Amino acid sequence: MKTTLPTTLMANAIRALAMDAVQQANSGHPGMPMGMAEIAVALWAGHYKHNPSNPKWLNRDRFLLSNGHGSMLHYALLHLSGYDLTMADIKNFRQMHSKTPGHPEVDITPGVETTTGPLGQGIANAVGMALSEYLLAAEFNKPGFDVVDHYTYAFLGDGCLMEGISHEVCSLAGTLGLNRLIALYDDNGISIDGKVEGWFTDDTPKRFASYGWNVIPAVDGHSVEAVDAAIAEAKLSSKPTLICCKTIIGKGSPNLQGGDKVHGAALGDKEVAAVREHLLWTSVPFEIPAEVYSAWDAKANGAALEAEWNTKFAAYRAQYPELAAEFERRMKGELPADFNATLDAAIAACIDKKENIATRKASQNAIQALAPSLPEFLGGSADLTGSNLTNWKECIALRSGKPGNHINYGVREFGMSAIMNGIALHGGYIPFGATFLTFSDYSRNALRMAALMKLRSIFVFTHDSIGLGEDGPTHQSIEHVSSLRLIPNLDNWRPCDTVESAAAWGAAVQRKDGPSTLIFSRQNLPFQERSAAQIADIARGGYVLQDVADAKAILIATGSEIELATKAAAALAAEGIAVRVVSMPSTDVYDRQDAAYKASVLERGVPRVAIEAGVSDFWYKYVGLEGAVVGIDTFGESAPAPVLFKHFGFTVENVVAKVKSVLTN
Amino acid sequence: MKTTLPTTLMANAIRALAMDAVQQANSGHPGMPMGMAEIAVALWAGHYKHNPSNPKWLNRDRFLLSNGHGSMLHYALLHLSGYDLTMADIKNFRQMHSKTPGHPEVDITPGVETTTGPLGQGIANAVGMALSEYLLAAEFNKPGFDVVDHYTYAFLGDGCLMEGISHEVCSLAGTLGLNRLIALYDDNGISIDGKVEGWFTDDTPKRFASYGWNVIPAVDGHSVEAVDAAIAEAKLSSKPTLICCKTIIGKGSPNLQGGDKVHGAALGDKEVAAVREHLLWTSVPFEIPAEVYSAWDAKANGAALEAEWNTKFAAYRAQYPELAAEFERRMKGELPADFNATLDAAIAACIDKKENIATRKASQNAIQALAPSLPEFLGGSADLTGSNLTNWKECIALRSGKPGNHINYGVREFGMSAIMNGIALHGGYIPFGATFLTFSDYSRNALRMAALMKLRSIFVFTHDSIGLGEDGPTHQSIEHVSSLRLIPNLDNWRPCDTVESAAAWGAAVQRKDGPSTLIFSRQNLPFQERSAAQIADIARGGYVLQDVADAKAILIATGSEIELATKAAAALAAEGIAVRVVSMPSTDVYDRQDAAYKASVLERGVPRVAIEAGVSDFWYKYVGLEGAVVGIDTFGESAPAPVLFKHFGFTVENVVAKVKSVLTN
Repeated sequence: MKTTLPTTLMANAIRALAMDAVQQANSGHPGMPMGMAEIAVALWAGHYKHNPSNPKWLNRDRFLLSNGHGSMLHYALLHLSGYDLTMADIKNFRQMHSKTPGHPEVDITPGVETTTGPLGQGIANAVGMALSEYLLAAEFNKPGFDVVDHYTYAFLGDGCLMEGISHEVCSLAGTLGLNRLIALYDDNGISIDGKVEGWFTDDTPKRFASYGWNVIPAVDGHSVEAVDAAIAEAKLSSKPTLICCKTIIGKGSPNLQGGDKVHGAALGDKEVAAVREHLLWTSVPFEIPAEVYSAWDAKANGAALEAEWNTKFAAYRAQYPELAAEFERRMKGELPADFNATLDAAIAACIDKKENIATRKASQNAIQALAPSLPEFLGGSADLTGSNLTNWKECIALRSGKPGNHINYGVREFGMSAIMNGIALHGGYIPFGATFLTFSDYSRNALRMAALMKLRSIFVFTHDSIGLGEDGPTHQSIEHVSSLRLIPNLDNWRPCDTVESAAAWGAAVQRKDGPSTLIFSRQNLPFQERSAAQIADIARGGYVLQDVADAKAILIATGSEIELATKAAAALAAEGIAVRVVSMPSTDVYDRQDAAYKASVLERGVPRVAIEAGVSDFWYKYVGLEGAVVGIDTFGESAPAPVLFKHFGFTVENVVAKVKSVLTN
Repeated sequence: MKTTLPTTLMANAIRALAMDAVQQANSGHPGMPMGMAEIAVALWAGHYKHNPSNPKWLNRDRFLLSNGHGSMLHYALLHLSGYDLTMADIKNFRQMHSKTPGHPEVDITPGVETTTGPLGQGIANAVGMALSEYLLAAEFNKPGFDVVDHYTYAFLGDGCLMEGISHEVCSLAGTLGLNRLIALYDDNGISIDGKVEGWFTDDTPKRFASYGWNVIPAVDGHSVEAVDAAIAEAKLSSKPTLICCKTIIGKGSPNLQGGDKVHGAALGDKEVAAVREHLLWTSVPFEIPAEVYSAWDAKANGAALEAEWNTKFAAYRAQYPELAAEFERRMKGELPADFNATLDAAIAACIDKKENIATRKASQNAIQALAPSLPEFLGGSADLTGSNLTNWKECIALRSGKPGNHINYGVREFGMSAIMNGIALHGGYIPFGATFLTFSDYSRNALRMAALMKLRSIFVFTHDSIGLGEDGPTHQSIEHVSSLRLIPNLDNWRPCDTVESAAAWGAAVQRKDGPSTLIFSRQNLPFQERSAAQIADIARGGYVLQDVADAKAILIATGSEIELATKAAAALAAEGIAVRVVSMPSTDVYDRQDAAYKASVLERGVPRVAIEAGVSDFWYKYVGLEGAVVGIDTFGESAPAPVLFKHFGFTVENVVAKVKSVLTN
């Protein structure tokens, strides 16, 4: 400990701030902050390497609250140690547009590294951060210059440990031996429904030992010294460490501690007063004694730590100027100067080759074209590498003790996606990872979290429809493309050929304010001819692929259904019915275009028919009550793909009939 | 073993059928059936209690293939042991409308107990089945009459064990001590990406020991005797058992066994021939020697087993006629004769009381009203019982060794949902389980599987919008209601008051061909007055709640936004603009009504405005290009609910303005 003040006072300051803020908001979770106060003191006052004056210092330790409902713990720590988080902010807990929202949110509160609340995902993000640290250290450190050299600390509770994702990510972290990851488990025996012994009796130390973790069991979570010693031991381990801290939820609350009532509701004025009496805490709400502030203040120490690193980095820069510049570029999330040229060349190559290939193969070609000049690419698959085609010729498989840039995540879709979010949050890499589109269901909330956090995570989903064929309805996406489109701030791309696939990859990589999904076919799709203007318009999400004078109808399609749309258009033309074909690889991006552009693509008053091998509901947004949709509103079947497309009405005849049905004569 | 034929021949018959069917389809997974052939012999020939002539025998053991890609193993077993699955069916593997689809599908193939493929969910279904067996035995068995007395066997592989859901459900099964559950792990060290040692190094026996399972490690999976002995041991355990069988994937394929290439693709004609030679298997494809059929034939033994049980059940019926009748009713999934009267009374009570309460509370009232006469109700919550309000006064919490009808599932949303599906599949109970609506994301694929399997699982989701308030955007549903509507065959209900809540519960319980979601508010909502005809029309999913002569516009709303719709209608009326208010608690059900009814609710040509505190995209299906939607297309914020509704435009002023914007003058 670097302080002479009794650590009890430091811990009780957290308790007071947490209970008072929750009381004032009449909303929030006092139990966890009060129960983890000593653990927080041990970590933050004894080990956590950070600089309150620069929350973005590149080599800071990362701290994550996987049990994010205890947000007041983090806010208290940030406030007390000197971050730009005032007492006014604390008083504003859980109020509109405050810096202290209900759960910690990255980019809202300085010092918050990730947005948590959905249980289990914080520890997954932590695995991603620890992995990033490991890989960046391997890539950038030089003898005498460990410029990347930090720990990732995560707090987690029973809820996180019950969630399945904790299994996925902790299993992988153990396999990979991410020894800079230190998790502190708030083992208080209570969850919302009461004593966990009725529904959660895991021997958690044994469980984590089975993953190959270093486990420090039975630590007294109310002894700062004991937790401090455990952390010190953990830092020396060659494995990730779980420190199991026995605690009392809501400790300090004489009448409620140790029970579920203290978990998620204000204590009430009477009990708040009782806590003050019990803890001998004489300060009024939202006042902290000067000596407590002083003991917590981490500004000077943090500035010194960063200054020391700055000196080291300056020397590193002097010796390795290119590496230093590259490190800084990567951590800023800036693309290489030649990225646009590389992308243009990749698209040009597609145009030259005119290949009729599956878009998942087109995706691999795009990866292959971009990867050599994009060292931040960090790919992977949830055990479907040969199907998703997210590997490339020069990629190196990550293994324990062996850095790489392609991750075999195992059959862990949710874990993969939340680890990717952690990688994106850490900085230094652009993560992409893949599974079959249908199993986006498993990872769905991690996609949502990426969108909420505005992360550059790139989710690759292949085998995007009944075109998957014989594996049948369990594996065939029906509702998935549309349902991903409903997630705010998620850009979804379903390209129709090699050119759109490359353009979609470009858009996903260039996007700096949110994640993208790249949705690809299993089966071959024909190359489409386009003008230079049309190629440029792909980036607008939707564009006219085939136009005619005086169109009587507009066919809108995506991905594998573009071929059908063009064939139907030809059949209609042969009957003297002129129709326009619009390719709409990303409705999300199209929706952001200006009204004039949108109207130039989907002309007002012209009847519309949408074609997509998925649920029809979504498409009424574009075709209206008078339009029609060729879609699938039931589950698929197990059969070869061509049989299925015919069975479900994806035929020229059916599209032609639908167009005729909407024509306003 | 009950056979004198060498078990090698029995196992090789599986290998031959699997490789030949996959070869003929040129699609499928030979590796697992060939690797698990001896395990299958040990279980099916030695222990599995079933009657091929009556796959629905109530007291059969349940057998599930959690690694469902090995479907040909199950089809081979069903065919060989005498189920109504012919060689023609086997030859039709993975073809349109065959009885042998790519993955096992319940209700398509006799003897298949659940639909698997999405990894990890089969073992979860198995936990639900074992739980059902335990609870039914406790409820119906009498001294000397163990009429419910069977095991649940599940096969699973590395993929299932990597998936997070395996943690959730096996942890809970261990806590509950479900000792009739026996899982056989195909430990072949290979997954699709190759040797699992690069990404999956769990000490699985230790992991399952940490859950409180009986673990039988290091069993030779190619020794029928060893597996047989392990199963015999497992049946005596007081805990669920995991039998870890060391196997060689694709065993029998001399050039491919033990590698990932044999997992998911046809072997090729040359290797198929090599297998024949290697195994000394001289029969041509799709021919099985008569003595092999004879050794596998389970019809006589199965008929004897069922006859024995029938005799027992007849004696049970003689002594306990009411219990016997109740057991049969429950297993048939028929509701009590007085259910409709009970439901009507529940609705009448709501009308009498006119309570302005949260619909989650209205839901609890409905549960309370129905539960006493619905003993098959088996409720629960993923650790949010006091928030979801899925408990009721007389409910008994399930604990290890203590039967109950309310399950504290712990923080295991996905596991809960897939366990519920297993309960629904087993028969005897109507499962319902709850979490916050946003965390339907975690369980999404289990909802999809319930819909695909047409199960009566009832998913309760509370805290359904920004009305959740201070917990903020991580917990506030935005896209969820609409995105659930996109899942085929899932009926989603978002009621607006006590009456609609009770009616929605009634519809969910009465539905026999699929699952329902019941989506409820955190906050209080006002009671709505209705005529008897209107009350009856709730069951049609959408109906006119407030009508006017010569409506200039139609307001469509759901749930908490009905109040706003009625207020806006009043404000518009005051300005001389007559509008109709349509309540649309279930778009899914409304969509199934006849065209005339639908047109009577949403009259053609009348401009429409939809109001829902969620994404707007979906609603264009009802309002068209000329209509408007009052929705939210961004994430929420952390603040008190009333502040949020105002911030996001859920105000009378905004709705009035939207209506005016769409009026066709």
